[in-house]
Amino acid sequence: MIVTLKPAVADSELAAVKDRLNNLGCRLTEVRTQRGHYLIAGIHGEPDLRVIGALPGVLDVHRVSDAYKLVSRKWKAVPTTINLGDGVEITEGGLALIAGPCSIESREQMQAIITHLQQEGLRIMRGGAFKPRTSPYAFRGLRTEGLKLSHELARAAGIKLVSEVLSAEQIELMYDYVDIYQVGTRNSQNFELLLELGKVDKPVLLKRGMSSTLDELLQSAEYVFANGNEALILCERGIRTFEPAYRNTLDLNAIPALKEKSHLPVIVDPSHGVGVRRWVESLALAGIMAGADGVMYEVAPEPERALSDGQQTLCFPESSELIKKARQTFELRQRF
Amino acid sequence: MIVTLKPAVADSELAAVKDRLNNLGCRLTEVRTQRGHYLIAGIHGEPDLRVIGALPGVLDVHRVSDAYKLVSRKWKAVPTTINLGDGVEITEGGLALIAGPCSIESREQMQAIITHLQQEGLRIMRGGAFKPRTSPYAFRGLRTEGLKLSHELARAAGIKLVSEVLSAEQIELMYDYVDIYQVGTRNSQNFELLLELGKVDKPVLLKRGMSSTLDELLQSAEYVFANGNEALILCERGIRTFEPAYRNTLDLNAIPALKEKSHLPVIVDPSHGVGVRRWVESLALAGIMAGADGVMYEVAPEPERALSDGQQTLCFPESSELIKKARQTFELRQRF
Amino acid sequence: MIVTLKPAVADSELAAVKDRLNNLGCRLTEVRTQRGHYLIAGIHGEPDLRVIGALPGVLDVHRVSDAYKLVSRKWKAVPTTINLGDGVEITEGGLALIAGPCSIESREQMQAIITHLQQEGLRIMRGGAFKPRTSPYAFRGLRTEGLKLSHELARAAGIKLVSEVLSAEQIELMYDYVDIYQVGTRNSQNFELLLELGKVDKPVLLKRGMSSTLDELLQSAEYVFANGNEALILCERGIRTFEPAYRNTLDLNAIPALKEKSHLPVIVDPSHGVGVRRWVESLALAGIMAGADGVMYEVAPEPERALSDGQQTLCFPESSELIKKARQTFELRQRF
Amino acid sequence: MIVTLKPAVADSELAAVKDRLNNLGCRLTEVRTQRGHYLIAGIHGEPDLRVIGALPGVLDVHRVSDAYKLVSRKWKAVPTTINLGDGVEITEGGLALIAGPCSIESREQMQAIITHLQQEGLRIMRGGAFKPRTSPYAFRGLRTEGLKLSHELARAAGIKLVSEVLSAEQIELMYDYVDIYQVGTRNSQNFELLLELGKVDKPVLLKRGMSSTLDELLQSAEYVFANGNEALILCERGIRTFEPAYRNTLDLNAIPALKEKSHLPVIVDPSHGVGVRRWVESLALAGIMAGADGVMYEVAPEPERALSDGQQTLCFPESSELIKKARQTFELRQRF
Repeated sequence: MIVTLKPAVADSELAAVKDRLNNLGCRLTEVRTQRGHYLIAGIHGEPDLRVIGALPGVLDVHRVSDAYKLVSRKWKAVPTTINLGDGVEITEGGLALIAGPCSIESREQMQAIITHLQQEGLRIMRGGAFKPRTSPYAFRGLRTEGLKLSHELARAAGIKLVSEVLSAEQIELMYDYVDIYQVGTRNSQNFELLLELGKVDKPVLLKRGMSSTLDELLQSAEYVFANGNEALILCERGIRTFEPAYRNTLDLNAIPALKEKSHLPVIVDPSHGVGVRRWVESLALAGIMAGADGVMYEVAPEPERALSDGQQTLCFPESSELIKKARQTFELRQRF
Repeated sequence: MIVTLKPAVADSELAAVKDRLNNLGCRLTEVRTQRGHYLIAGIHGEPDLRVIGALPGVLDVHRVSDAYKLVSRKWKAVPTTINLGDGVEITEGGLALIAGPCSIESREQMQAIITHLQQEGLRIMRGGAFKPRTSPYAFRGLRTEGLKLSHELARAAGIKLVSEVLSAEQIELMYDYVDIYQVGTRNSQNFELLLELGKVDKPVLLKRGMSSTLDELLQSAEYVFANGNEALILCERGIRTFEPAYRNTLDLNAIPALKEKSHLPVIVDPSHGVGVRRWVESLALAGIMAGADGVMYEVAPEPERALSDGQQTLCFPESSELIKKARQTFELRQRF
Repeated sequence: MIVTLKPAVADSELAAVKDRLNNLGCRLTEVRTQRGHYLIAGIHGEPDLRVIGALPGVLDVHRVSDAYKLVSRKWKAVPTTINLGDGVEITEGGLALIAGPCSIESREQMQAIITHLQQEGLRIMRGGAFKPRTSPYAFRGLRTEGLKLSHELARAAGIKLVSEVLSAEQIELMYDYVDIYQVGTRNSQNFELLLELGKVDKPVLLKRGMSSTLDELLQSAEYVFANGNEALILCERGIRTFEPAYRNTLDLNAIPALKEKSHLPVIVDPSHGVGVRRWVESLALAGIMAGADGVMYEVAPEPERALSDGQQTLCFPESSELIKKARQTFELRQRF
Repeated sequence: MIVTLKPAVADSELAAVKDRLNNLGCRLTEVRTQRGHYLIAGIHGEPDLRVIGALPGVLDVHRVSDAYKLVSRKWKAVPTTINLGDGVEITEGGLALIAGPCSIESREQMQAIITHLQQEGLRIMRGGAFKPRTSPYAFRGLRTEGLKLSHELARAAGIKLVSEVLSAEQIELMYDYVDIYQVGTRNSQNFELLLELGKVDKPVLLKRGMSSTLDELLQSAEYVFANGNEALILCERGIRTFEPAYRNTLDLNAIPALKEKSHLPVIVDPSHGVGVRRWVESLALAGIMAGADGVMYEVAPEPERALSDGQQTLCFPESSELIKKARQTFELRQRF
């Protein structure tokens, strides 16, 4: 059960609500986020929610039987919007297009990409500075230096930046340079990192673990939310299956399922999802048709020469094609 | 290597071509299908294909290094079309909409469905008569009786019928009543059945095994083709993964991958693919956007009362919605 | 609910039992096997089993809530033994060692293998005559000719033969030459084949499908049992996972799980299970320690020259080692 | 290529070796661990290793073509032993038995467990203090307090402690209280954590990610090793598959495969691996027979009342049985 408290709930009112719930045998967790104030109550039996809803200081009450609570759609009817400032937002029912390189490699590379984004009217860029690499001998990113140069160029162009965070210590290092913290597939259940991201006042884009169930993804989101940060975006990026023809298996079934289960925006990453450059466009468009609120993909001036993962990265003409078709596909979906 | 022979190749010419290939150390398989005459030659090294192509009686030569040969796109440039007669066809680059019940249950049910298909302009119906059921105590279909009544009603309405065949013996039993033989996911590697279907002059719709790789699916298709029957349709219908939120995981990555690898039409089955009725439409449209040449789904007058699998079956209004949106999605894709 | 009827149940008694069950709202299936006579009753609520057990003609009654019934351990306390004649048997709690080539290739090969088995005291040989091959261009076995020569040599040596059956038509072709019909992983849910095997009076060794759950394997066994043939052996042979280091992932968790769920003997096939020759022994011994009632593996005079799958086949010295260690491992397990 | 340098290599010698390798076009990484000094050289072509091995300051040279280098068996012939002090060690070819609760819950619980371990002659205890929990509302462990009390009791009993570390910050917090840092399945690719553990002078037990391939596990181990810490233990703990009958699928194929690929000790965790208490013993014994160098499992005084995961935890009598049988199984394996 989620009890949403009024913003101005008095201490005595709060104490009375807690007493009432304790008397019903509930196990209580109090949650204060940057946007709201809640009591999560584990309940037994069938208490009369109307009675609790009528208590002073209570705004609303919902029953949520899932393992995740605050990220569930069951208690929140209005669509969730992640506001990035300057008129840029990621919103349920919208189409956020996010593009950029796998890794930030140089000022020249980033400037070329930003110019491409501007020409196409994109407002959000991805780009890895701290790279999680399977081999300890591989290129691990330009780190803070890469973020600084990307931030400087992006801000000048009115573009927002998403970048992956690998550990709690990096949160502060990255704070001045990113607009959205991305949690990668390998950290999807790094709960210590999730807890710390709950305390930050910037949005978090949470990728599904490559072997996470939807329930696990939603519980990971619950970690961030329950620790204070409601500004969350979910991202399907491919799961691990037996099929060797693609690097991962992009799971588009997850799109309608997550949209039904949660009120959070859900985007799709076809670059990592299928991992084969020439199939990225088809899966991006399919993702939009399946109901995704956005697409994040990789683009670079010369994918073949990228220091990492060029095999899933589009060149500019391919990216322009994808953007045009993505918008038309979205328009059609909106007419439905 | 595939050596396509001229329709009027002389015996002496054929013998000369075989001699030449044997001298090159090739292991030869001669294939005569209902449409063509081929030599499949396992080769070592780099023989000069132009020399072989210039031999009397040879129409064309292509190198195909995949495990599958005749179903590969590498040797066949023109799109494959499966002609069902009366102007009905399934073709690469087209949109074949196929709908019908999980199981044929009664004349009334089938008449209602056929009326619905007619109203919506659909020309191909699915419907199971011999049902593969996990439990030996479940309803196993009306068998030949079900096919007869469906065929009679469908023919009167100008509608073609797809139905699943479970064993070689059923091929003849079904012959008079079906227009397409369907091989289900559990028989995807029933090679004895595939061999027999190579000898029939009706098309075969081959579903991907729930744990088949794309290579295995294409080799299963090769079985039918190499035994004489070129009229093949591939169908993605969901694979088995760790995710419990859906019955199967519809793998839309397979659509662009199969379209690139093979010249055969590829359709998608979102009903079995995701197995949850309210997500079928989203995945059908996503499948079309991913490049599918058709959609096969389940529809019934009262899905809740179906003897089998009602949880993935649409009612008529849902089906009408899907059809309308599918056609608009296809139109948009064609404009790309 | 399984109602086991007395061998000499009178028609009037049977009718009375059915009436009683029908009055309780049960959906009834009557099963006559080569060994027993049962009523399988789908029940609702909590009928008093003692009342039914006391009816004339009833031997025993058990409640079985699983989807599979007759293969469940819940109704059968005594261990199941598959008697192959001449003192050879496969039994719960025993150690059946079964070895032989992937494919029967020649009289010389088979004689060498039989001599090896005799020297090591093995009484059951495996060997494929009808081979299910992924590619239509691969060697498909010596078929009936291979079975005949193997049978002749094996009988002279007092050795029993297991061989794979691919279709209902082959059942009769093979009947005179095999002692156990094997159903392979690709036919694990070929229900038409399973139905026909229910009518034969020879044992059936049922391999788990490479993506079958234990419940599905047990329901496949139920098909054969419910159609008359109780002489069943289950075989774990590796499932499909994301791991590319081995051909399949032998699932030894299945051994204690299947032993708990079913009264049927359970053996393990490490050759196909892991698919790498030098790891076969370790997994064979691990399988015995996990509780398997037998091991089936591949052995050949010159594995490197085998026409198929030599990479998982042991040579004679390796086989002798495995047999010696397997027996010692089994002795230790028995002392536990 | 791994070039192992002599402990007393002179700076001029080192420079000369690097020059030589640079001239061969190698990409060099210099690695200094707590035990050794290495150059990892990415090579092209076929340089003469004998020439490099003869250079002053060079102890040994090996070619290692795997993605992992220093953890590969190819360069290290002698078995790896992890020395924990006081005569306690984990070693290749040995049998380390490690038992303890899922979570440290109270002094009484820990004292009871330690007494049990002492009676059975076990010298290493597991116990979680920082618990990674899927739900943010679940019990997350006694944290430092739990470690302190466990350490105090364990030291008095001459028992070593393994406990899971969730983030780089916890490394120092835990340092005084643990003998082995455990990296859990959800942090298997938390590369920032792995890097930091490379700098610690205590052993690291690295669990396989629930969807990690063996190559990924070995590359994660390479992270720790290449950052300085050679004292590593690998642990198979179950992977994610489609089978719902067990919580995970313990993959015993990994045991012989990892033992062949790496020189590190490999242990098995049947508690998490199968996740069902009554099957833990069978899989522990199977793991030993497959070649594992140890077994780690959960034991508690009253598993049914544990705050977390009691369903896979043994009680004391079950644990005593397992220990007795494990030792007998190991003795038999040693005789082979």
